[in-house]
Amino acid sequence: MKLKKDINILIIGLGIIGGSYAMALKKQGYYVSAITKEKSDIDYALKNKIIDYGTTEIEEDLIGNSDLVIFALYPGIFIGWLTEHQHLFKSGAILTDVTGVKSCIVHEIQSLLREDIEFIAAHPMAGKESSGVQNSDDSIFKGANYIIVPTDKNSESAIELCSDLGKILGFKDISVLSPEKHDEMIAFLSQLTHCIAVSLMCCSDGENLERYTGDSFRDLTRIARINDLMWSELFSLNKEALLSQMDKFKNSFDELYEKIKSDDIDGVRKMMRYSTERRKLFDKTN
Amino acid sequence: MKLKKDINILIIGLGIIGGSYAMALKKQGYYVSAITKEKSDIDYALKNKIIDYGTTEIEEDLIGNSDLVIFALYPGIFIGWLTEHQHLFKSGAILTDVTGVKSCIVHEIQSLLREDIEFIAAHPMAGKESSGVQNSDDSIFKGANYIIVPTDKNSESAIELCSDLGKILGFKDISVLSPEKHDEMIAFLSQLTHCIAVSLMCCSDGENLERYTGDSFRDLTRIARINDLMWSELFSLNKEALLSQMDKFKNSFDELYEKIKSDDIDGVRKMMRYSTERRKLFDKTN
Repeated sequence: MKLKKDINILIIGLGIIGGSYAMALKKQGYYVSAITKEKSDIDYALKNKIIDYGTTEIEEDLIGNSDLVIFALYPGIFIGWLTEHQHLFKSGAILTDVTGVKSCIVHEIQSLLREDIEFIAAHPMAGKESSGVQNSDDSIFKGANYIIVPTDKNSESAIELCSDLGKILGFKDISVLSPEKHDEMIAFLSQLTHCIAVSLMCCSDGENLERYTGDSFRDLTRIARINDLMWSELFSLNKEALLSQMDKFKNSFDELYEKIKSDDIDGVRKMMRYSTERRKLFDKTN
Repeated sequence: MKLKKDINILIIGLGIIGGSYAMALKKQGYYVSAITKEKSDIDYALKNKIIDYGTTEIEEDLIGNSDLVIFALYPGIFIGWLTEHQHLFKSGAILTDVTGVKSCIVHEIQSLLREDIEFIAAHPMAGKESSGVQNSDDSIFKGANYIIVPTDKNSESAIELCSDLGKILGFKDISVLSPEKHDEMIAFLSQLTHCIAVSLMCCSDGENLERYTGDSFRDLTRIARINDLMWSELFSLNKEALLSQMDKFKNSFDELYEKIKSDDIDGVRKMMRYSTERRKLFDKTN
């Protein structure tokens, strides 16, 4: 199932990700509407031609005429919104999302949803250290990963449509993962790295350190500038997987600590050589 | 004391840092010689006009005619080289270095050195993930910090000359720190960050993770590709300061871990807000 040009797309939640989706889709000729909380965000998006139409109201006609609905809300309010308003969707509508954690929401949503509507979860692995529709920028999708997270309740055609959406948005790689595999991966690659950056930034209040800071420290702490509302919620929703990855890192860090402490230079070098070899896998290939 | 144009500069050890020094100095019109172990490195440097003259031998005339000698050797062999060959230096010669740790070498070198020669320690905070004279690149000094690390045995004029050298090499900021302050700072900003990157790279052998890797993980592990010979030596030489910084990080990481585990969302958000505020200090200003 391809994303036809004449469909109506509705984005719920116009922050940086919702705005960047709208920007990319409108550039490709789609008609894009949005519902969001703040009037000023709608005004900004209309003025800057990010959307074709926008409102802060629950407009029944708008929702009832939408073929593809993209939820770009914080996970905590996403399920509440659906429960309250799902009776307004047209039969056959496809819903998708941009949420960074999956196990905790996908199954619940698929259970509560009307049978004639399909929710196919997706995670665009792209972002910035800024937030808000004013920072919308569809170039963040270039070279990034788009992950489709289906369950056995999803149809092949919805997976295909979601894949097409990822391509239209400009993502480089489109993959498919189960909710559990997704959450394990995201706990390691994204949440653990944010925990490390925050801990590093918090662990020393030394003065004037910034005068001597080089690229290593800057690179490790770039993501220490963090949206505390969103990330604390994501951590909490993926708590078990995250704590398990944090344990693994702690073990590895403790191992290195003990080797340095006991003057086990060979052991330290062995870890460094393993690290160097394994890092090569993660070089950008594009 | 300014670095006069007609002086003879000798670099001992032609790796990436020695080579990049030579490149920058020769571009500024200085006559630069080098002594290094491998004939092929001398050949490369001569062919690519990185140096004016080079040899793998301990040439007495060359050493005896050098006004400024820059040691770009691993710390472990640096002191041995000096002990063996210091009788060859001309009276009044100034020696400096590029070593990444200071307390463990500066005092020892200043004690063993002939009285008519001055050693002024310096640390160019610049580098790459690659090594060898073939990777020489004087652009790595642009925007970087150059730290002069004098003791009370150093003269004002040697500190001034060293500062002039940093400017000529193209460094953005030239600072002065005591050996102990330098080592504490480097343990935190540089060595701890490398320990974190290596531990993160070693802590999971999950397959196919590279397919989903975004910028966060890549940024945190860029320096996980590491020269194990050099860095294990630097860690070992700065062991106490490094272990102390690793302890601080462990405490901070454990604090975050416990807050996530006990669902203390407010506590997690508080750490994130502190981290976000403090990170602003470290933004590049140029």
